Amino acid sequence: MPSYALLIEYDGAPFVGWQRQDTGLSVQQVLEDAAARLNGGEEAVLTAAGRTDAGVHAEGQVAQVTLTGDLPPERVREALNFHTRPHPVAVLGAAVMPEDWSARFSATGRAYRYRILNRRARPALDLGRVWHVQKRLDAGAMHEAAQGLLGKHDFSAFRAAACQAKSALRTLDRLDVARLGEEVVITAEARSFLHHQVRNMVGTLAEVGLGKRPASWPRSILEGRDRTRAGQTAPAEGLVLTGVRYADAIDWR
Amino acid sequence: MPSYALLIEYDGAPFVGWQRQDTGLSVQQVLEDAAARLNGGEEAVLTAAGRTDAGVHAEGQVAQVTLTGDLPPERVREALNFHTRPHPVAVLGAAVMPEDWSARFSATGRAYRYRILNRRARPALDLGRVWHVQKRLDAGAMHEAAQGLLGKHDFSAFRAAACQAKSALRTLDRLDVARLGEEVVITAEARSFLHHQVRNMVGTLAEVGLGKRPASWPRSILEGRDRTRAGQTAPAEGLVLTGVRYADAIDWR
Repeated sequence: MPSYALLIEYDGAPFVGWQRQDTGLSVQQVLEDAAARLNGGEEAVLTAAGRTDAGVHAEGQVAQVTLTGDLPPERVREALNFHTRPHPVAVLGAAVMPEDWSARFSATGRAYRYRILNRRARPALDLGRVWHVQKRLDAGAMHEAAQGLLGKHDFSAFRAAACQAKSALRTLDRLDVARLGEEVVITAEARSFLHHQVRNMVGTLAEVGLGKRPASWPRSILEGRDRTRAGQTAPAEGLVLTGVRYADAIDWR
Repeated sequence: MPSYALLIEYDGAPFVGWQRQDTGLSVQQVLEDAAARLNGGEEAVLTAAGRTDAGVHAEGQVAQVTLTGDLPPERVREALNFHTRPHPVAVLGAAVMPEDWSARFSATGRAYRYRILNRRARPALDLGRVWHVQKRLDAGAMHEAAQGLLGKHDFSAFRAAACQAKSALRTLDRLDVARLGEEVVITAEARSFLHHQVRNMVGTLAEVGLGKRPASWPRSILEGRDRTRAGQTAPAEGLVLTGVRYADAIDWR
């Protein structure tokens, strides 16, 4: 039974998140239902590199599925795209993987982008894709503050209460903040993130951008390890999982 | 009674187009209903620089409205944004204009962007914002072909049957085709365009991109002035009115 990697794009808006839940439709369920069609109705289980929350989007989610038949990856991609219609989920590529490969545990890096629309008028074209902040943000101050969070730390201060990770120790490799016209775009990269870590870091950096806190504040919050002292959790809709990295490049078809 | 210019962004998907019609909700109606609230219920008429079709989006539409009261432009912008909720229409700026200024006739340039998503998998994140073309397009050949359409010509071959313009003579200043990853992006600029001109040019260039026609073909279609010989009208959802130019820069508030 061959194991396949899948490269997946989705709009998070209509879903309860990546993971199956009783409360509504998940991306996982849409793809597992489609994969079961390829298995002659037999259940197929998908595991993803990043279990995105409700409303969070993906341009480059990577998941793994084992199928009963030996199908070329192009067939798997096309068939899944056929059976996931009309949901806003698209399989961009598929690849046959060795048995010991894990979408989740073999991943060596995850990258997220967070978009803030920073203008008076509410979003019309980017509704559901950005966090709308009306007051002017100082992206330079946010970037300076972000650099204080880089490296290996206990990120308890930026972790959701519901986070199930055993340790809060993570290594943040990149946290860039840049202004692009009316937008402030935050790019975050790490081997892995805690639950809500990116959104909590963004909410904390926004306090600096609004001038309510100095650029040194996020670092002191990090060191305090107290979630209640950090900024708000930035809304889900501004967040996109842009990609997952593996030691060996995947030959997407 | 002061005249105001409005800079407007909208998602074309839920509308029958810019212009009021009996068949459904238009962007014009949403804004005129909002403007009437500022006029104490008295009717307000909006005129736009570009009467976009159903499904066509705008990042930088410019329209004009006369109000009964003397309001600062910031007030006009904020009040219109309040009263247009929850429609995906946002007023990005407003300005008080001289009496002889016309959003439509004073415009010296209009710019459009057309996005083609050129990959196997259907769009998930950009659904409703792109034309999905699965077969690989040769953007270089499309760009070469596009250059043959530049300049002052009779564009009858690229004009909708319903086009109401007296003359089909137009001067095309820019028609660039570029590949950006999985996308082929077409940028078009002219003083003004005929009805469906951009979408008909894009549909014709796509035939070249698919290798069905040589790069010299769109120019020969132009010279033939026969709409029935040109390519299909590319779908509305890939098109965005990105901006309108005026001889005197507008001081948007």
